[in-house]
Amino acid sequence: MARKTKEEIAEIYKGIQDHITSQLELHDGEGKFKEDLWQRADGGGGRTRIFENGKVIEKGGVAFSAVHGPTPDKILKKLGLDQADFFATGVSIVLHPKSPMVPIIHMNIRYFEMDNGTHWFGGGIDLTPHYIDPEDARYFHTEVKKVCDQYDPTYYPKFKSWADDYFYVKHRNETRGIGGIFYDRLSATSDSHFENILKFSLSLGRLFPDIYGHFMKKNGAVPYGETEKAWQNLRRGRYVEFNLVWDAGTKFGLDTNGRTESILMSMPPQAEWTYMHEPTPGSAEAFTQQHLKKDIDWLNFHP
Amino acid sequence: MARKTKEEIAEIYKGIQDHITSQLELHDGEGKFKEDLWQRADGGGGRTRIFENGKVIEKGGVAFSAVHGPTPDKILKKLGLDQADFFATGVSIVLHPKSPMVPIIHMNIRYFEMDNGTHWFGGGIDLTPHYIDPEDARYFHTEVKKVCDQYDPTYYPKFKSWADDYFYVKHRNETRGIGGIFYDRLSATSDSHFENILKFSLSLGRLFPDIYGHFMKKNGAVPYGETEKAWQNLRRGRYVEFNLVWDAGTKFGLDTNGRTESILMSMPPQAEWTYMHEPTPGSAEAFTQQHLKKDIDWLNFHP
Repeated sequence: MARKTKEEIAEIYKGIQDHITSQLELHDGEGKFKEDLWQRADGGGGRTRIFENGKVIEKGGVAFSAVHGPTPDKILKKLGLDQADFFATGVSIVLHPKSPMVPIIHMNIRYFEMDNGTHWFGGGIDLTPHYIDPEDARYFHTEVKKVCDQYDPTYYPKFKSWADDYFYVKHRNETRGIGGIFYDRLSATSDSHFENILKFSLSLGRLFPDIYGHFMKKNGAVPYGETEKAWQNLRRGRYVEFNLVWDAGTKFGLDTNGRTESILMSMPPQAEWTYMHEPTPGSAEAFTQQHLKKDIDWLNFHP
Repeated sequence: MARKTKEEIAEIYKGIQDHITSQLELHDGEGKFKEDLWQRADGGGGRTRIFENGKVIEKGGVAFSAVHGPTPDKILKKLGLDQADFFATGVSIVLHPKSPMVPIIHMNIRYFEMDNGTHWFGGGIDLTPHYIDPEDARYFHTEVKKVCDQYDPTYYPKFKSWADDYFYVKHRNETRGIGGIFYDRLSATSDSHFENILKFSLSLGRLFPDIYGHFMKKNGAVPYGETEKAWQNLRRGRYVEFNLVWDAGTKFGLDTNGRTESILMSMPPQAEWTYMHEPTPGSAEAFTQQHLKKDIDWLNFHP
């Protein structure tokens, strides 16, 4: 079995984008994605799909891109190379729901290769509930683990812990949410291993709309008031802080003249900042704040 | 005339903070500053004063700090030093007005020295109108230039151009606002030069409340509607982007375990993001967007 070519991988990822956007439209029932095709001056381009003002999803994007050209200096330097052409393709998603009772979600799958033969896969999926709900947290991590376990029993524990470290808002000493999985620079050691990693990323892509559909359906109609809305806007502010200050993908994109509007589709529709905000002791907000920590076993989270 | 000691400079800067906060309370008429005293684990501390929900000022802060201890590795590395203790003191201000017709303003004055004898002054003041008004722009730059010219005729042209480069939102290809002045690593070549630079920074501190009081009075009662409020929230989003992605002071603070709540007092109370927002051609928003550019001669700005 020969390895899939980069063009084939890009087509497969494009298909994943199609699947996800059509599923999300079904789940939302009202909103429709708008599509932007764009080209990159140095080679390649993308297909950004944006969702605004749906019934459940307030703002979000599902972006596909396949870009190529001379490798950016930052990567060359890290790898100790003088010159090489690169190819990168992937799907990136961030969804901000209208309701504070529905979690924010992020997913990314990507493939990178250089003409010197180097290649790797990366990706992840993580959940940022405005309110941490133990049942939802267990469900999310269980579903993600199931997919991981189909491909490699070491994936979930390794990538779960990587996500805890990656999705960390260092200047706040808190995690972005309840984590999930994160992996990067996963290179294949054989053709079948290559196929295995590729399929793993596809399975994550297939899992995504099922998981989010579940949360949309389960929590979309839960009532909430001004307190919950204010807390949501504060948590959205933290989401902005993580993405603009710490997220490696965002930083790299903005630094290397990426397509700003596609990179910053991750921004919430609205965010708020209040000086020295402290949740009321004993409140649901305080419970959430207390559990924005690394190393929680969400699979067995029964607080 | 001997040079002022670092302790004397800190006291003088503290006095500037007092002057500014009392003047701003007078100008606002309703809001009052709340004070937080904090200590830094490695040495020194600060006095952060926060203003929330005033009549004109919706959210803002005037922060004084005087910190010391082992120089952070990043600075040592830049200077090619192995070890040195540092002392830094300064006043930092960001004010977000309630009304979109009143500009956002920022000012900073700071003094830094190391026990190896190195010292420098830095600072700046820049204006971010939600709506660029030619008269206001001329007024702001004229007042700032007047202060600069009292100390050195080369200051204004040099520091104005430095501000154009510094307050630049690279990933948006736009300036943060209409600029102002920015200077850094200004070292004295003699005792009288030292006194001159110190006094220059004090004059900026004295100028600040006069300038902002002028805008509060002049524009605070100008009527506005939902269009202006929506545009303000979008511009606030760009302010967030600049501060979290590009502002060297913010990045350095968050990177080196600075006091997060004092650093991020610069965040607006609220911000919004809309995918691919384009102002209506010919509108006041479009006029502003078109003039978020470097190298505009604001002293003689008659579009």
